[in-house]
Amino acid sequence: MIEGADLIQASAFLGAGLAMGLGAIGPGLGEGMVGAKACEAIGKNPGEAGLLTRTMLVGQAVSESTGIYSLVIALLLLFVV
Amino acid sequence: MIEGADLIQASAFLGAGLAMGLGAIGPGLGEGMVGAKACEAIGKNPGEAGLLTRTMLVGQAVSESTGIYSLVIALLLLFVV
Amino acid sequence: MIEGADLIQASAFLGAGLAMGLGAIGPGLGEGMVGAKACEAIGKNPGEAGLLTRTMLVGQAVSESTGIYSLVIALLLLFVV
Amino acid sequence: MIEGADLIQASAFLGAGLAMGLGAIGPGLGEGMVGAKACEAIGKNPGEAGLLTRTMLVGQAVSESTGIYSLVIALLLLFVV
Amino acid sequence: MIEGADLIQASAFLGAGLAMGLGAIGPGLGEGMVGAKACEAIGKNPGEAGLLTRTMLVGQAVSESTGIYSLVIALLLLFVV
Amino acid sequence: MIEGADLIQASAFLGAGLAMGLGAIGPGLGEGMVGAKACEAIGKNPGEAGLLTRTMLVGQAVSESTGIYSLVIALLLLFVV
Amino acid sequence: MIEGADLIQASAFLGAGLAMGLGAIGPGLGEGMVGAKACEAIGKNPGEAGLLTRTMLVGQAVSESTGIYSLVIALLLLFVV
Amino acid sequence: MIEGADLIQASAFLGAGLAMGLGAIGPGLGEGMVGAKACEAIGKNPGEAGLLTRTMLVGQAVSESTGIYSLVIALLLLFVV
Amino acid sequence: MIEGADLIQASAFLGAGLAMGLGAIGPGLGEGMVGAKACEAIGKNPGEAGLLTRTMLVGQAVSESTGIYSLVIALLLLFVV
Amino acid sequence: MIEGADLIQASAFLGAGLAMGLGAIGPGLGEGMVGAKACEAIGKNPGEAGLLTRTMLVGQAVSESTGIYSLVIALLLLFVV
Amino acid sequence: MIEGADLIQASAFLGAGLAMGLGAIGPGLGEGMVGAKACEAIGKNPGEAGLLTRTMLVGQAVSESTGIYSLVIALLLLFVV
Amino acid sequence: MIEGADLIQASAFLGAGLAMGLGAIGPGLGEGMVGAKACEAIGKNPGEAGLLTRTMLVGQAVSESTGIYSLVIALLLLFVV
Amino acid sequence: MIEGADLIQASAFLGAGLAMGLGAIGPGLGEGMVGAKACEAIGKNPGEAGLLTRTMLVGQAVSESTGIYSLVIALLLLFVV
Amino acid sequence: MIEGADLIQASAFLGAGLAMGLGAIGPGLGEGMVGAKACEAIGKNPGEAGLLTRTMLVGQAVSESTGIYSLVIALLLLFVV
Repeated sequence: MIEGADLIQASAFLGAGLAMGLGAIGPGLGEGMVGAKACEAIGKNPGEAGLLTRTMLVGQAVSESTGIYSLVIALLLLFVV
Repeated sequence: MIEGADLIQASAFLGAGLAMGLGAIGPGLGEGMVGAKACEAIGKNPGEAGLLTRTMLVGQAVSESTGIYSLVIALLLLFVV
Repeated sequence: MIEGADLIQASAFLGAGLAMGLGAIGPGLGEGMVGAKACEAIGKNPGEAGLLTRTMLVGQAVSESTGIYSLVIALLLLFVV
Repeated sequence: MIEGADLIQASAFLGAGLAMGLGAIGPGLGEGMVGAKACEAIGKNPGEAGLLTRTMLVGQAVSESTGIYSLVIALLLLFVV
Repeated sequence: MIEGADLIQASAFLGAGLAMGLGAIGPGLGEGMVGAKACEAIGKNPGEAGLLTRTMLVGQAVSESTGIYSLVIALLLLFVV
Repeated sequence: MIEGADLIQASAFLGAGLAMGLGAIGPGLGEGMVGAKACEAIGKNPGEAGLLTRTMLVGQAVSESTGIYSLVIALLLLFVV
Repeated sequence: MIEGADLIQASAFLGAGLAMGLGAIGPGLGEGMVGAKACEAIGKNPGEAGLLTRTMLVGQAVSESTGIYSLVIALLLLFVV
Repeated sequence: MIEGADLIQASAFLGAGLAMGLGAIGPGLGEGMVGAKACEAIGKNPGEAGLLTRTMLVGQAVSESTGIYSLVIALLLLFVV
Repeated sequence: MIEGADLIQASAFLGAGLAMGLGAIGPGLGEGMVGAKACEAIGKNPGEAGLLTRTMLVGQAVSESTGIYSLVIALLLLFVV
Repeated sequence: MIEGADLIQASAFLGAGLAMGLGAIGPGLGEGMVGAKACEAIGKNPGEAGLLTRTMLVGQAVSESTGIYSLVIALLLLFVV
Repeated sequence: MIEGADLIQASAFLGAGLAMGLGAIGPGLGEGMVGAKACEAIGKNPGEAGLLTRTMLVGQAVSESTGIYSLVIALLLLFVV
Repeated sequence: MIEGADLIQASAFLGAGLAMGLGAIGPGLGEGMVGAKACEAIGKNPGEAGLLTRTMLVGQAVSESTGIYSLVIALLLLFVV
Repeated sequence: MIEGADLIQASAFLGAGLAMGLGAIGPGLGEGMVGAKACEAIGKNPGEAGLLTRTMLVGQAVSESTGIYSLVIALLLLFVV
Repeated sequence: MIEGADLIQASAFLGAGLAMGLGAIGPGLGEGMVGAKACEAIGKNPGEAGLLTRTMLVGQAVSESTGIYSLVIALLLLFVV
């Protein structure tokens, strides 16, 4: 027989899958855009490669944040809740 | 037997997953656009790298806000409610 | 046994998740567009950086508004209703 | 037991979430377009910054209107109905 | 027990949410396009700012109309029907 | 108990919401395109502003027609049927 | 008790809403494209405004046809069937 | 009680709505593309307006065909079947 | 009581609606692309209008084929099966 | 009473509709792209019209193949299975 | 009464329809892109028509492969399984 | 009566259809992009046709891999499992 | 009678199909972009064909990784779990 | 009989499939963008191939992260939970 605690657990697992699956689309694409433009810029101006790589990493790190939020929510749904 | 409190909890977990998963798409993409244009601009005008990095971070911080709202709503659905 | 008040609460939680999750897509992308163009413009015309940053922040603030509306509706669905 | 009034209330809450969540996509993106072009224009023609900021705000205000309609419908679904 | 009148009311509320939520996407985006092009045009030709603002407002007003239709249908579903 | 007449009325209300909500996407975007190009054209050729405004309004009026059809169907679903 | 005739009527109303709602997307967008290009063309070549307006109206009228088909099907689903 | 003939009729009505609603998207957009390019071409080369209008109408007529197929299927689902 | 033959018939009608509705999207758009480019080409090179019209019609006829397949399947689902 | 053979037949009909409806989107659009580029190329280089028409037809024929596969599967689902 | 073997057969038929319908979208579009670029290239460089036609056919043949995989899976679902 | 082994088999068949149908979209489009650019490059630089054809085939082969993975999973779902 | 172990197995098979089907879209398209740009670059700069082919393969290999993750998860769902 | 532990396991498997399937779309596309731009840049500036390859790999590694998060969540759903 299905108890309420089982339904809660099941929906938490489904929610974790959706949170991480959907939450990886935006940052994955956004970071790709940053990296693409950084490669283009370094190709044109290789003397500033260090500066551009740093900018790329900072820009990607901020974009990564929403992906990490999704990871946190998914992990919380798996273990803590 | 499934009690009402179980249904509430289950829907809160599913709602948390959707809120964070969908809510990461917009900011993740938007911040990627900002970072991409910042890399492009620094590649063309490296003398203004500091100014451009600051602008990028400010622009991304505002875009990040809706992602943080989603995180807040998801956390509230997990713990407080 | 599931009471009506439980169904109401469950649908309020699901509605809150959808409101914030979907409501973060538009402003997140829109603010990213504003920030991207601001970085591009500052890269071309760094002497007007202050003016452009102000314009960017004003433009993003208006775009942010619908995200805040979503946050308000989601919080109302969680706590007040 | 679920009464009819509970079903009404539940669907009102779900409807409010959908109205605000979907209703934030259009204005959020549209206002971002306006702000992006305003930044671009000010970067090219900073002498007209005041005029362009006013135009941007007027254009965004009209675009904001449908977002406010969504907010109104969502609030009506939460409190008045 | 769920009466027929309750089902009618519930579907009216859900319909109102969908009508306003979906109905805000088109006008919100369309008005944003008009405003974006108006800012661009004023930036290039600031001497015609008054004429362009008027044109923008007229163009946005027509685009707004379908958003207002959605508002009307949503309000009718909430109060009159 | 749910009677058939209630089911009919409920599906009419849901259909009205979908008709108006979906039906506002196309005209809202299409009229925005017309208005955007009209602003652009007036900015380049302000001497023909009257002619262009008339053309814009005629073009938008035709595009508006499908939005009005949706309004008519939605109103028929609400009141006449 | 729900009779078969009620189910038929209900599905006819839902079908009418979908037919008109979805059927307004294509013509609304298509006519907007025609109108946008007509404004652009008149702005460049105002001496041919009459010819271009006629062409625009003819092109939009053909595009309108599928919208009218949708209206016809929706009206048939509401009244005749 | 719901008889099989009622289920058949109901699904025919729903199918008619979907056939016409979805079937109007493609031709509506496609004809709009043809009309848009025809306006553009006439604006550049008004001396060939008659030839271009004929070409536009022929091109639109072929594109219209799938819309008419949808209309035929929808009418068959409403009346003949 | 619903017999199996009724379920078959109902699903055939729904399938016919989906086949024609979805099947009109691709050819409708594709033929529009062909017609748009043909108008553009004739506007630039009106001396080859006959040749271009023939090419347009041949290209559209092939694109039409999948629309006709959809029509055939839909008619078979309505009458033969 | 619904027998298993009826369920099989019903799902075969629904599957045929989906196979043909979805399967017409890709080839319809793809062949339109080929035809559009062929018209463009013939307009620029009418002396190679025969060669280009042959290339267009070969390219469209390969793209048509997946549409024919869909037709085959749909026919098999209707008659053979 | 529905036996298990009937459910298996029914889901195999539905799966075949989805496999072929969805599986025709990618190759249909991809081959259209190849053909479109081949026509464009032959129009510019007709002396290499044979080489380009061979390249087009090779490129399309590889793209066709996933469509053939879909056909194989659909046929296996219809006959072998 | 439906046994568990039947449900397993049925879901395996549906899963195979989805795996192959969805899994053909990405490679089909991606390989088309490669082939399109290869035709364009050979048209401009026919002397390197052999090199470009090899590059195209290598690039397509890697893109094909995910399509083959989908085929493998679908075949495993049909026969081995 | 359906046992729990059957439901687990069935959902594992459906999950495997979705994981591989959806997971092939991103890498398939992404690798196609890499290959397309590599062909374009080799066409312009054939002297660096070896270098470009290596870069293409490295870039595709990283993009392939998420496709391989999907394959691993799908295989685990089929055999290990 | 289906126990609660079975429902939990089943939803965990479905969640794992969705997490990995959806989570591979963003990184797969994003890494493809990076690789595409890197190939383009190396083709133009082959002397900086080492630098550009390093930048590409760093940029792809960050974009890969959200794909790895999805893999982690999927593996946790399969084995640990």
